[in-house]
Amino acid sequence: MKNTFGTSVAVTLFGESHGEYIGAVIDGLAPGITVDEEYISRMLTLRRPDGKISTPRKETDEFKIVSGVLCGKTTGTPLTILIPNENVKSGDYAAIQMIARPSHADYAAQCKYHGFQDARGGGHFSGRITAALVAAGAICKSALEKKGIFIGTHVKKCAGILDREFGDLLTDIKMLNQKTFAVLDDVCIEKMTNAILEAAKDGDSVGGVLETAVVGMPAGVGEPWFDSLESQISHMMFSIPAVKGIEFGKGFAISDMKGSEANDAFAIKNGEIVTQTNNNGGLNGGITNGMPILFRTAIKPTPTIFKPQNTVDFKEMSETVLEPKGRHDPAIVHRARIVQDAAAAIVLCDALALRFGTDWLKG
Amino acid sequence: MKNTFGTSVAVTLFGESHGEYIGAVIDGLAPGITVDEEYISRMLTLRRPDGKISTPRKETDEFKIVSGVLCGKTTGTPLTILIPNENVKSGDYAAIQMIARPSHADYAAQCKYHGFQDARGGGHFSGRITAALVAAGAICKSALEKKGIFIGTHVKKCAGILDREFGDLLTDIKMLNQKTFAVLDDVCIEKMTNAILEAAKDGDSVGGVLETAVVGMPAGVGEPWFDSLESQISHMMFSIPAVKGIEFGKGFAISDMKGSEANDAFAIKNGEIVTQTNNNGGLNGGITNGMPILFRTAIKPTPTIFKPQNTVDFKEMSETVLEPKGRHDPAIVHRARIVQDAAAAIVLCDALALRFGTDWLKG
Amino acid sequence: MKNTFGTSVAVTLFGESHGEYIGAVIDGLAPGITVDEEYISRMLTLRRPDGKISTPRKETDEFKIVSGVLCGKTTGTPLTILIPNENVKSGDYAAIQMIARPSHADYAAQCKYHGFQDARGGGHFSGRITAALVAAGAICKSALEKKGIFIGTHVKKCAGILDREFGDLLTDIKMLNQKTFAVLDDVCIEKMTNAILEAAKDGDSVGGVLETAVVGMPAGVGEPWFDSLESQISHMMFSIPAVKGIEFGKGFAISDMKGSEANDAFAIKNGEIVTQTNNNGGLNGGITNGMPILFRTAIKPTPTIFKPQNTVDFKEMSETVLEPKGRHDPAIVHRARIVQDAAAAIVLCDALALRFGTDWLKG
Amino acid sequence: MKNTFGTSVAVTLFGESHGEYIGAVIDGLAPGITVDEEYISRMLTLRRPDGKISTPRKETDEFKIVSGVLCGKTTGTPLTILIPNENVKSGDYAAIQMIARPSHADYAAQCKYHGFQDARGGGHFSGRITAALVAAGAICKSALEKKGIFIGTHVKKCAGILDREFGDLLTDIKMLNQKTFAVLDDVCIEKMTNAILEAAKDGDSVGGVLETAVVGMPAGVGEPWFDSLESQISHMMFSIPAVKGIEFGKGFAISDMKGSEANDAFAIKNGEIVTQTNNNGGLNGGITNGMPILFRTAIKPTPTIFKPQNTVDFKEMSETVLEPKGRHDPAIVHRARIVQDAAAAIVLCDALALRFGTDWLKG
Repeated sequence: MKNTFGTSVAVTLFGESHGEYIGAVIDGLAPGITVDEEYISRMLTLRRPDGKISTPRKETDEFKIVSGVLCGKTTGTPLTILIPNENVKSGDYAAIQMIARPSHADYAAQCKYHGFQDARGGGHFSGRITAALVAAGAICKSALEKKGIFIGTHVKKCAGILDREFGDLLTDIKMLNQKTFAVLDDVCIEKMTNAILEAAKDGDSVGGVLETAVVGMPAGVGEPWFDSLESQISHMMFSIPAVKGIEFGKGFAISDMKGSEANDAFAIKNGEIVTQTNNNGGLNGGITNGMPILFRTAIKPTPTIFKPQNTVDFKEMSETVLEPKGRHDPAIVHRARIVQDAAAAIVLCDALALRFGTDWLKG
Repeated sequence: MKNTFGTSVAVTLFGESHGEYIGAVIDGLAPGITVDEEYISRMLTLRRPDGKISTPRKETDEFKIVSGVLCGKTTGTPLTILIPNENVKSGDYAAIQMIARPSHADYAAQCKYHGFQDARGGGHFSGRITAALVAAGAICKSALEKKGIFIGTHVKKCAGILDREFGDLLTDIKMLNQKTFAVLDDVCIEKMTNAILEAAKDGDSVGGVLETAVVGMPAGVGEPWFDSLESQISHMMFSIPAVKGIEFGKGFAISDMKGSEANDAFAIKNGEIVTQTNNNGGLNGGITNGMPILFRTAIKPTPTIFKPQNTVDFKEMSETVLEPKGRHDPAIVHRARIVQDAAAAIVLCDALALRFGTDWLKG
Repeated sequence: MKNTFGTSVAVTLFGESHGEYIGAVIDGLAPGITVDEEYISRMLTLRRPDGKISTPRKETDEFKIVSGVLCGKTTGTPLTILIPNENVKSGDYAAIQMIARPSHADYAAQCKYHGFQDARGGGHFSGRITAALVAAGAICKSALEKKGIFIGTHVKKCAGILDREFGDLLTDIKMLNQKTFAVLDDVCIEKMTNAILEAAKDGDSVGGVLETAVVGMPAGVGEPWFDSLESQISHMMFSIPAVKGIEFGKGFAISDMKGSEANDAFAIKNGEIVTQTNNNGGLNGGITNGMPILFRTAIKPTPTIFKPQNTVDFKEMSETVLEPKGRHDPAIVHRARIVQDAAAAIVLCDALALRFGTDWLKG
Repeated sequence: MKNTFGTSVAVTLFGESHGEYIGAVIDGLAPGITVDEEYISRMLTLRRPDGKISTPRKETDEFKIVSGVLCGKTTGTPLTILIPNENVKSGDYAAIQMIARPSHADYAAQCKYHGFQDARGGGHFSGRITAALVAAGAICKSALEKKGIFIGTHVKKCAGILDREFGDLLTDIKMLNQKTFAVLDDVCIEKMTNAILEAAKDGDSVGGVLETAVVGMPAGVGEPWFDSLESQISHMMFSIPAVKGIEFGKGFAISDMKGSEANDAFAIKNGEIVTQTNNNGGLNGGITNGMPILFRTAIKPTPTIFKPQNTVDFKEMSETVLEPKGRHDPAIVHRARIVQDAAAAIVLCDALALRFGTDWLKG
């Protein structure tokens, strides 16, 4: 339903880049979940541009929760988070409102909204809105942790530079959740940063791949067919601007494997059924099998670049050249990582509440 | 909602591999759409195992439409398709009901359905159910064609063998829709068939990649954030058994590109706004921009193989070895291609009806 | 979503009066629920016209369940019920397809379906479709009984004749569920039957009021605001043809009461919180309070009558007189009673599964 | 979905009586709809307690729209309205948080939210939240008027005093929309006011009946079965606190009529198909027939009264007497009238957008 995601736990997003507030309403969360504002702040900080390898726009994200929380606990009724927009410079964008920025939503939005869309700073399509998604997801992620379910995402690849593979998942997830620049191998921080800065110097941008692991999900969650957990997770992930692909387990690589290589043999370990490999990323037939959920997303290079670009003026119906000004990010993959964590947490809370009832997440 | 997909046009799937009928209900289709049973039959035939590089199970798919159609036209009320199951040999599966077939849904289903699931032939998780999806999608695909929207899928890769790239899309799509083995370069038919047969001889299976193109979609369809058209399409595609990844436009490859390479410059051609490249696969900000929609899915090798596999008996909670018997497909990628067409058609009909009203597809 | 109702447990209806099958798909039912075909048959029999005070159309309702049940238990995957239409006489209706029957859906359907609707016997709008609703609801009602939740409906009023008030609810509900003509006071059977026959003799029809009681619902089910249980129940009840009103507890009569009379004082009885009166019908703020749920619906007189009626031919756009032929019911209130039971059972199963998880109804 | 209503146009409500903000998000509104803040203010004023026959709580309802509107027009993306809570006196309620107020949601909420609910002033269950519903509905109502669809509600009955019947609907609706106390016959204002004041003097409260008329709805809107427009409207209306019944057209009275009296004969007037009576309230088979929509709701007397009431302390599980303090309304029926208008407008915008596409309301 457009800007609302979820069935039992549902999140509604709203706001524009240069409006007064962006925000989110989370409906259906169990009552009694601890809402740790520190935790939310920390996740918002990880998403925030740092001004060096990200846009110099200053975002302080001084969120406030205006409903659904009492004495630090969820009430069970809709929880609303507001994040004021600050440091808004509408002037930068005024001139280009009718000129479609290549690979941005400007022209598609024009076809849908007929010129009434708020085009300032990307309006409702701005990556800025992901701050509200992160705040909402932070509450979900923290609730899941209380139930032993942990989510972590690393920059698997940026500008062609590869991070190491996941090792012990729980250890790695906890480590990633402490890091500002989420790579498993710290050597990558400098390498990736340099590649981003180099692209920036050239007026260009880079993309990457994000890999998310979830441990602790109970088996038997998700649906056959249309609400497979893969369907639900991918539905959510493609809501994140810049995501152009998603794969679970071995993903596209599995298409080159033989069945005998790809199949995950079952075994018993410590009295529990496990698989010896996890090429299916914890999901069989769309339903969790108790193994870690693993998925990767493809993040495209940020479309705003500092080079002249051929485009059209869709009011004048004429070709033109876009000479960009204003702020921009040479890369967002390192920031999108926390958005991916948050988004995954929302999907899982919804699926779990639907499976085990609305009190399950109470902790 | 579990086994129902869609908002304005909604499809509900039901049935089990060894039940009396599988089927689908399509609700919300515009009245007055021509329902061409030949067209449906042709699509069902393309999905059907051919007995050579597919399972020897004979499926005749003698579907019947028992509601929602009068005098060959949709009435606008729920259209129900029934496909009887024939040639059912339950005996083959009886013995392995408690033994989890690796990378099948058996164990996940056990965790969700506590032993009450119909495990015969994969039950509700069987690829057999896709016949109902194909029948439903055939009606949608045919309705879209009347509106100038064409969908085609080719086996981009099978057993590591690559088909050629798409050329002129409309020509290629129409050609694919005539073919039994959907590749753009006919040379691949023999190569891929041989690779499949070789795997089969070895008791093994192979996977592949499917690529779908859609031409003719109007611009301005889809939603920002949670109902991006990418979200909706991926949600649907991950409902297809064996899909483990999806990517739009350049997909994962875009994550290695610079912004200046990846961006699709806009231009004007014959008085219409187009992009000079289509790295974003026809979608910006989740909304169609009028360019062709392009996406690829990763199809895993069929998990049923003719080799002994380590697994567990989840009733006995003991490790065991699975010695498979019965029918199986050494590959499904060449059959899944028509499922992907059908599934895409359903998503697009829903998105278009939501955007332009419930009469739009009337033709 | 049009012909689908429910979130966690969802029912989809399909079929037309003169089609091959009518039917229902129930998705999301817990696995392991006993499906008692006798029970379903009994409920279908209670809905069926008896040929005396109902239409002489013979309906045997030889339903079959073609998916979702194995060895007499739900599998947890979509359960599909088919009911073949028999004794179909399309000829009776052919002549009046373009002549709007007053207070029937014919003209409204024409405006929505533009002449493509199946008009034979009312098509998809026929009360016949309620047989599928009853079959689906029978499974839900039986599952609820295993959990101690009992539903019963009586003909509170028919042709102006009033049944007695509910006494001990559980006793009365169990008695009603045994009865063919569901009144609390048997004296009403003859009175109401005579009034119906008298109207029939005169070529006319009568309506009535149905009252439903539910005992055993746990407290804390339902949602504030848009998914109040009243909202959900009324949404469902207005799906039943002929329902033109619904009221909970004292209903419209409460609007004439003072707050001091209307308020339900709380008390403690056998260690449990109860209310001393139940003017609110078991619901406060849209959520169950543990008291019995009580509601009444207004059933209009069947619109098909044996008198000439002024109307229009909407193809010719001319005024005309309708001279009815064919079969009809002088009253349906005594049959609708079992539809109301079934419909209520579906709503409650959905609300309970959403609240307590998808396994809760397993029994 | 809990606190979200609608499919194509969806409204999400949030907030608590004593929180910082209450508010609403409207998603899916067509772009380019004029948002007239005066119009919204006027509707909010009509809802607001006047301090005489309503609670002395001062509500200024200084709403602000923080997303989805640019230059006074909807953008087409989620529109968020915030209404700050002022004049909050939490102290009044602190003492009774564990004592269930009879016929309020307190105890039901306790069963659902386990003590985590915000009980101050009724929290999320407070009638205060309807201010957000009114603001959201005002935008919808105003958009409908631009398309020739007019909604008006009068206090049909209050404290047993009856207003006159509707006459010429369009004239009456326009008149009602100008009035502070919405009755058709001005004589009722003093009579009803006196009755309310008398009840207030006695520490008691009164209820009433609201009747709503809608003119201008095109025929062919709504769905057969589960999404009949009656289902959708009733779903919404039971979200309004205090509504305990709803009836369409003749409603419960129709159950006493003969078919020959109840049936609405069709005729042709000025080249258009109309009915000569409108006993079905503009809806046949759940779908609009082009006649005015008519419905009435039963509003219970406000449960807060100034008399001691028997109740329980649900923390202590003991019986007790509630001695009420704080502010309260001796009647809300005259204020609820504007809530009913707003709520109806939301339902109709959703149904129309679904039927005719997301641009239809653009005006």
